[in-house]
Parts: sequence; structure tokens; C-alpha cells
Amino acid sequence: MSQEALDVYIVPTADAHNSEYIAPHWACREKLTGFTGSAGTAVVTQQEALLWTDSRYWLQAEEQLRESGFSLMKDGTEGVPSPEEWIAEHCGTVARIGAPADMAVNLAGGLTICSGKDAFSEIWTDRPTLPAEPIVTQDEQWTGMTIQEKLGALKRVLEEQKVATDDVFVINDLSDTAWLLNLRGTDVAYNPVFLSYLAYHSATGKFQLYTHSSTLTPEAQQRLQEAGVEALPYEEVSRLASLPHLRVCQETACWGMWPAGVGTFHSPVEMWRAVKSEAEQEGMRRAMLQDGVAMVKFLRWLDERMEKEEEVTELSIDEKLTALRAEQEDFEQLSFGTIAAYGRHGAIVHYEADERSSVRIPAHGLLLLDSGGQYHSGTTDLTRTIAMGHLTQEEREVYTLVMKGHLRLEHMKFPVGTTGLQLDTAARQDLWARGYDFGHGTGHGVGAHGCVHEGPHQIRKDVRTCTLVPFCEGMMVTDEPGVYVTGRFGVRIENTLLCRKAEETPYGKFLEFEVLTLCPYDLRAIDRSLLTPEELEQINAYHERVRKAIMPLLTDDDDRIWLARATAAVDSELD
Amino acid sequence: MSQEALDVYIVPTADAHNSEYIAPHWACREKLTGFTGSAGTAVVTQQEALLWTDSRYWLQAEEQLRESGFSLMKDGTEGVPSPEEWIAEHCGTVARIGAPADMAVNLAGGLTICSGKDAFSEIWTDRPTLPAEPIVTQDEQWTGMTIQEKLGALKRVLEEQKVATDDVFVINDLSDTAWLLNLRGTDVAYNPVFLSYLAYHSATGKFQLYTHSSTLTPEAQQRLQEAGVEALPYEEVSRLASLPHLRVCQETACWGMWPAGVGTFHSPVEMWRAVKSEAEQEGMRRAMLQDGVAMVKFLRWLDERMEKEEEVTELSIDEKLTALRAEQEDFEQLSFGTIAAYGRHGAIVHYEADERSSVRIPAHGLLLLDSGGQYHSGTTDLTRTIAMGHLTQEEREVYTLVMKGHLRLEHMKFPVGTTGLQLDTAARQDLWARGYDFGHGTGHGVGAHGCVHEGPHQIRKDVRTCTLVPFCEGMMVTDEPGVYVTGRFGVRIENTLLCRKAEETPYGKFLEFEVLTLCPYDLRAIDRSLLTPEELEQINAYHERVRKAIMPLLTDDDDRIWLARATAAVDSELD
Repeated sequence: MSQEALDVYIVPTADAHNSEYIAPHWACREKLTGFTGSAGTAVVTQQEALLWTDSRYWLQAEEQLRESGFSLMKDGTEGVPSPEEWIAEHCGTVARIGAPADMAVNLAGGLTICSGKDAFSEIWTDRPTLPAEPIVTQDEQWTGMTIQEKLGALKRVLEEQKVATDDVFVINDLSDTAWLLNLRGTDVAYNPVFLSYLAYHSATGKFQLYTHSSTLTPEAQQRLQEAGVEALPYEEVSRLASLPHLRVCQETACWGMWPAGVGTFHSPVEMWRAVKSEAEQEGMRRAMLQDGVAMVKFLRWLDERMEKEEEVTELSIDEKLTALRAEQEDFEQLSFGTIAAYGRHGAIVHYEADERSSVRIPAHGLLLLDSGGQYHSGTTDLTRTIAMGHLTQEEREVYTLVMKGHLRLEHMKFPVGTTGLQLDTAARQDLWARGYDFGHGTGHGVGAHGCVHEGPHQIRKDVRTCTLVPFCEGMMVTDEPGVYVTGRFGVRIENTLLCRKAEETPYGKFLEFEVLTLCPYDLRAIDRSLLTPEELEQINAYHERVRKAIMPLLTDDDDRIWLARATAAVDSELD
Repeated sequence: MSQEALDVYIVPTADAHNSEYIAPHWACREKLTGFTGSAGTAVVTQQEALLWTDSRYWLQAEEQLRESGFSLMKDGTEGVPSPEEWIAEHCGTVARIGAPADMAVNLAGGLTICSGKDAFSEIWTDRPTLPAEPIVTQDEQWTGMTIQEKLGALKRVLEEQKVATDDVFVINDLSDTAWLLNLRGTDVAYNPVFLSYLAYHSATGKFQLYTHSSTLTPEAQQRLQEAGVEALPYEEVSRLASLPHLRVCQETACWGMWPAGVGTFHSPVEMWRAVKSEAEQEGMRRAMLQDGVAMVKFLRWLDERMEKEEEVTELSIDEKLTALRAEQEDFEQLSFGTIAAYGRHGAIVHYEADERSSVRIPAHGLLLLDSGGQYHSGTTDLTRTIAMGHLTQEEREVYTLVMKGHLRLEHMKFPVGTTGLQLDTAARQDLWARGYDFGHGTGHGVGAHGCVHEGPHQIRKDVRTCTLVPFCEGMMVTDEPGVYVTGRFGVRIENTLLCRKAEETPYGKFLEFEVLTLCPYDLRAIDRSLLTPEELEQINAYHERVRKAIMPLLTDDDDRIWLARATAAVDSELD
């Protein structure tokens, strides 16, 4: 910092691609502070060392920072300034700020970064190298469009945005490149992408892929060659910085990598990815079948272990479910870390059990189980909350209210153009009516064998760019309302939905959802008096679909018996 | 146009204050074109004369324009350019454009107005003068805040936005001035406001009111004096244009009145007006009681006339209802032109009957009746759709679905900060489920003895600034879903609601609505099979409230019998 005459050095949790999960190479904040949580920003001055993180991690951070010299800043607490506010106050708005150039930092409040020098290249001696896992082709059976078709479409859009004859456009988002090139990798945990930049040179009409090209499989190499895409080393992307007419993506660029005042463009790729082709939809349905089989086998196992009073812990649930997913033909990896959270752990929204926290599940209360897998043909994400035995009336009420919101959203018919902010009301109104609510989003986009969290659309209750995106045919979105009763239990119920055409009337074109997820709900947790006959019918119809789809794929009689019982129609008159 | 070397002259439907209804003095577009509709823009070049208006007025405009030399441009039709697009195409984006300086024109597409000369001051010889009706005080019993308190608060906000020591701020909106000064007028139809500008001189800390000061009542004069507000002639506001540090309201300024590049500020007054004081809420409740009495008497009269097979027409309905409102103690005028629309007229959203269109009501089908009054203490706005006799199954279905949406919105409980875009979903989801929808907004703010349409919030299905305003305690809003079956009938059901505190739970602060409107729904039009027991209970509870509130105010036994019958509880078990 002295060498560069810096007042402040910022270390975010980020990579050069605005990724949700980052490779160990970029774990600089963890290295510096000792804090291992997935979110946080470290700020260092000559006098002070601070770490900001949100409420999920306060306990963990306090413990891990104890010997580090870092003080914890509780992000989101009233009176606690943001990093930018703190810097402006303590170092002034003209402070000389440094941050690693290849870690995306977006500073608010008019602050600018004047040095992109990476302090960790010197001080972190055993720093992991950049990942360079194999890059494989995604079967065109599951993409529906060839590389050539996708790049041709992109070329047309970029040519329209061209200003100079030799504009060079750089795509920075790893999901964009993976989708465009029908390629997949495993450089980043859970997300089937690979480190890369894709550049389009409008002067020549050619595309360049900057990546660890030595790990391209022969098949992947051939595909790129056929499409006329030149493969170059990942690091060489920095050469583009000196080009006169470089344009980087407004939404996803890592600004530290490029000269100040670099040109920008708007990428259409996120929206293209969001609208799934028929082939991608079919691929998702196939992945859901395999995931449904794994879930049914798991749920039967869980019931059996509990009946036999054999030990079940949060960690053993994670292990068993992962093993059952791994048995599936197309399984590759999990799509995110499994959340198996019993009782009060269920009220911690991003809880992940570890050796220390994992509890043995007793024969009462609720288990929240949020999990998903990456399959060759698609990506899954579902949550079931499961009755482990006796439930309190509060647990039943909350479970049933969450179920009502989940069902209402799933069942919505709405005009083309309706946004996530409007749809959100469907999921929350029954909760609000009884004074419940939840702080997280109600739904996010899902990749087709891509990242489990995809934009540009979300269903949530706050006004954001993502909640004002009009829904259209082919979009996928999760439906995951919840309620978290601090210190006692959490409920979340989640399916992945496909937005499809419903009907056209004199009043407009209407859309509806197809439920892609195929896994029974736990009806043992329901308070029947809170469900309408229509809601029970909706559950029955879904359970019939699940049974018809999954039953033929089960070979074990005990699994079949379990599924038949779990999906048996509930008589709405009996209550 | 030759004198000023203009390529284009624009005549909007507007006054200097962005008012919804304009005084006859500003009816230049009507004078020029002969078209009398309430919305439209005339554009004249040396070669052409065009009038843009929306679908409500196409038939009428075609007829009225026949001899005028103006061609009709059907605004909102695909392929029909907007006025700006047309000008850009035919005259270029650097066209020299004129428009009367004191008629608010907002040009999109980078066009600018280079002459504010008012062509009508020469060519319209018998032009009506500016209105100058009496300006009276609004009883402080119904405002809850004195002029001094309101101006003091405004002063604090403006001082915070001050840049120079002698900044002068001009309030342009007529509702803002009327509300701030606790004064009312009748310069504009239906809206209890008076032509005026309010200026704040930060150098002296003084306010100036530019208006027709000769019509201030002595009481109003005294109030202004006590508050230290200087009254000046309306026209003299133009003198402010030469001040070096003039600031006009960003949201409502009439730009033609002020020098290019004039400073701006954000007015807090619209939001202040929207959040009703306890006194304003009480005033609204009082107005609703009187309006409810008029409505009940009217509905009984209507039933009786129909039973006796006496003639009832759309116009006689308007007359009778207005007469019954006029009998009420605090009544001043209607809050908008009554819409009494039978059968297919009901499907024309802004239909107003005239001598030519008015039909006799037969003993079947639906009458849509949208009306309201200005009372000393408040403003009302309600719609009832009334069964005139036999109904088709389609009429019943549509009526009941609209009722479900209306009830669901009325019944919503939601966290502080929820927006109109989110609330809108409550009113539409039951309609959408059967492929119905409506094109207009679901709800608008209402003035407290002010304009019947008030901002800044609205409930509607499109993303606009007004639909992203967070709701808070004290806001009033209408709840008026509808469905319009072209050529056959229209249904709309509307109450005015007050947003109030519901409860605070560990999950947040929740709001709910108090229904201010007191008038029975017509249950003869209901299809009981489409209503849930909870919805019937909601109607019964409302009817009980209406009965208890209105009954003591009725002196005529027949009115009392009618009300008792119309509000009798419906047994949900009997169906």
C-alpha cells in the first residue's frame, strides 16, 4: 500500500466474472481474514482492518476473526456504514483506493479505484493456480441450437450496436460463454462453467475464446473449429485492453481489467439463456425424472431409518441424498450445497451443516431439505420440509400457510408481460393475512445444465431490475416461499416451474406454469382445516402426475409402496 | 406560423398546471378542431392538420372532424406514429416547433419547442377569460393542520434543497397550493381548486400566492395574512422568470412558461397530500355517510321506478342521483361526470351519456354506475354495477369474478412498503384464472375535498413510477376492478379505501384497508357458486357496517326497508 501510496485496499469476495461461487484462486478475502463465509468484503487502511458480512455469518465471523486483527462490521445493521460510507468518512471521497484488478468491485458513492495491483500475488505464496478442468461439449440434443446458430444471432445483435468498424466486444459472464458455445466445465463448484472470455471482432466477423484451451476435449475443439472460434490462452485476454474500440458488457464487466472509460454494450445473452428452447425444456424434464427418483428413494430411506429408530443426522442426510443422486444415469454433481436443516437450524436461511453443527434428528419437528443436482440434460432445485414425527400446532399452521402460497403461485394464470414483483403477491398473501412473511426471494431463474441461480428475472417482493422483468413463454423459475421461526423451525417448499402458454382470449395472451419438479409433498405436516377443497385437488393432481412419472422408474417394491402411499389422493370431504 | 418561421404548431389538451380538467379558456384544441373530447393533441404544419386521440373518442372525432380539415390519427393503433414520431418523420428532428407557452407539453424523442407564442390570443376573438371564482377557506376541522404548519414544513424541505441564498421556488400544481393554504375554489370543473402559483423566496423566507386575489373571501384573506402569505395577481407570476435563481417543480412545471435551463426542485407536497391526517380521515368518513345516504335513496328510487315500469334513462339516472347528492348538507358539486352506462354502453370505459346516446333502461341486463361528490369535508368515488332484471349466465359470472377481485384487494393485509404493482395482483388473479382482464388501473389516490384522482400512488398492472410507490398508513386509494365485454356489457365495482395499521409481528409491520365507501353491493347479480364462504362473510360484514352507519340517517320508512333488505346477511349454507 505504501509503494502505491494507497489509503485503502479493498478485498471483495469475487472473481473476474461476477460469479456466484468463486474458485480457490480468488479466495483472497478468506486468506487475508481467516473468515470462511461465502460473502464479505475486507477493507484495510494503514491503521485499521475491517470485515463486512451479513447476518448469516456474524457468529461465525466473530469467532474466526478473533486472532486476525480484523474487526467485524455487521452489514445491514442500522447505524453500521457500508464499506463505501466508511471509506468516505475515514479516508475522504478522494481516497486512493486499491483492489485486485481481476476481482469485480462495484463501488457506490462516487469512489474510484486507482490501483488494480494484486497484493496477493506477492503475499500469498502458496496461492492456488487458476482452475483448468476439462471443457466438454453439451449434447446438442439438450441445447436445441448449434454453436453456429447462437453465435450468428449474437453477431447480428452486436453488429447493430457497433459504432466503429473495428469494435471488439467481450463477453465476461461464464454462463453466457458456456451457453453460447454449447460447452461445459467444472472450474467452479456446483456451476458447470469454465474460466473464459469470448471476444467478437467485428472487423473480421470472428469470435475468440480465451480459456485454458489445453483442457478442451477433442470433441470440444472440433466444435469450436467448425464454428470458426479461435481458442487462445485465458491470460491473453488482457491484450484486448489496448485496442482502440474495445467494448465490454455493461452488466457483467469486471471494470478493474479494462482502461477507464472503456466502451460498453448490452448483452442479450442472459435473456436468451432465460428463455428455454424445446430441447432444453425436454432436458429439464429428463433431469427432473432422475432427480425425482433419487428424492423418492431418499424419502423412503429417511422414513425407514426413523421408524427403526436408527441414527439420522443432518450430515448423514446430505451424504445419503448425494449418493442416491450419484446413482442416476446423467448425474454430474450437486447444483449447490445441500441444506439439511433440522428444527431451529431450519430458521437459518443459508444453513449448511458441518461436523460441529450437525445434529441427530429426533422423532418430532420439521426437517428443511433444500437440494438439487446437475445432470447432463438439466439442473434441478427443490425444497421439501418433512415431518419427522409429532408436530406442534404452530409448525402445522406455518407449513400449511407456506404450502398455500406455494400452490397459489404454481397455479397462477397471468397475462404475458406480468413481472416477478406482481407474481410474488400470489405466494405471500396467505402468509401476510396471518402476519407472516419471509425475507428472501420467492423465485429465481434456473439454468439448463447451467448455474442454479440465473437471471434476468426473479420473483420477490422488492422493487429491483430483476423483479420488473416481464415473464414470457419458456422461462423457468423456482417457487419457494418460506417462513422462519427464529430458534424453533423453518419451512420452505420449492418446485421449479416452466412458464408456458395458457390461452389467448379477447382480454389478452395468458401464461401459466408447468411444474417441472417431481417429488411428493409431505402431507403429514398439513393442517387440513386451512386448505380449501381446490387446494387439496391441486395437490392430488400433482401427486398423481408425480406417481405416474416416477413409478415406472422404480424397481424396488418398497420404493413403489412408499410412493403409492405418499401420493395417494386426499379426500377433501373426509376432514 | 410564417411570422415565427415555424414548421409545426402543437395544440395539446392542457393548461398551465398539468390539470386533469381544464378551464374553457384553455380549450384551444377544441376551438381549433371542433373535436370536443377530453383528450387529444392537434398538430398543424403548412401542409397538414392532424388530431391524435385515443380509442374512446375515435367515432366521435371522426364525426366532429368531418368539416374541419383535420385528419384523425388513432392514437395507440399499431403503425400509427405518435405526434413526436410524426413530426420527426415529416419535419425532421430539428423542426421549428411552436406551442402555447402556458399549455404544458412534454415532447419525447429529443424535440424542443422554440416558440411559446400563443396563436389563439389573436385568432380566437371570443376566447373565454381565465376563470376567477371565489376562493374560500377549508375548515381546519377537516384539514388537521394549519396553513402555518404546512408552509413551515414546506419551508424546511425547500431550504434543504436550496443552492443559492436567493433561490425562489415555484409550486405549479393547483392541488398542492389548495392543500398547502387550506383554501378551495371552483375554477375547474369537478376539482375544488383555483388558478394559482405559490412562490417561496428563500432570501426573505416569505411565500407569495399568485392568483385572482380579488375573489379571495375576507376569511381567506385573513388566513393568508396571518400566515404571512402575500397575494399577487395571477399574471404577475411571469415576472419570476427573470430571476437568477428560479427553481420550478421537476414533476409538474409547465416548461413553456420558464427560461430554458431553469433550475428545478422536487416537491414533497404530493406525498404529503396523499397521507391523510386524522382530521382528513374523519372528514372523508363524514362525506361517505352523506354520499351513502344519497346512494341508498337513489338505489331504492331506481328499484321502484323499474318495478312500476316507469321510464328510466341513463340521463334521468344521472339527474336523480345528482339531485339526491345535492340534498346532502355538505354537498358542493360532483367529483367527476357521472357515468351511468347501461348494457353495451357499460363496456365503453369512459362513457358519459348525452341527449343522443342516452337509452331507456329495460328490465334486464347490467347498469354500470360510477359517480362521486365533493363535500366540504371530503371527496367520494364509488361504482356499483346493478342488475336491472334478468341476467345472462355470462353477466353473472363476470360480475362475480369482478366482485371476488374487489373483495380480495379490500381484504389484503400486507407489509409496509408494498407497492400498487404488487397489490394489483390481488384484484386480478381471479379474473386472470378465467382469461379475463381489464385495461385500466385498479386504484388511484383520492383527495380530501380535493381532486378525485390524486398521486403519487396507483394500483395497476403496469410498471410505472406510480405503481412503485410504497403504500403507507393514511393513504387513500380506490379499489375498482372491472371487465368489459365489448358490445354487450361492462362490470366495475369500486370502493374508496383507507390504508391503516394492521399489526406488528416478528415478521414486520402490516397494513390493511378500511373501506370508507358505505353503499350496498347488488347481490342479485351474484353467482353464489363462485363465491367462497369467506367471501360471503366479507360481504355480510360489510353490509352490516353499511346498515349500521346509514340506517340512522334515513327518515323515510321505504328507504329504511330497502336498506334492510339490501344489506340482509346472506347465508353461506343455503346455496
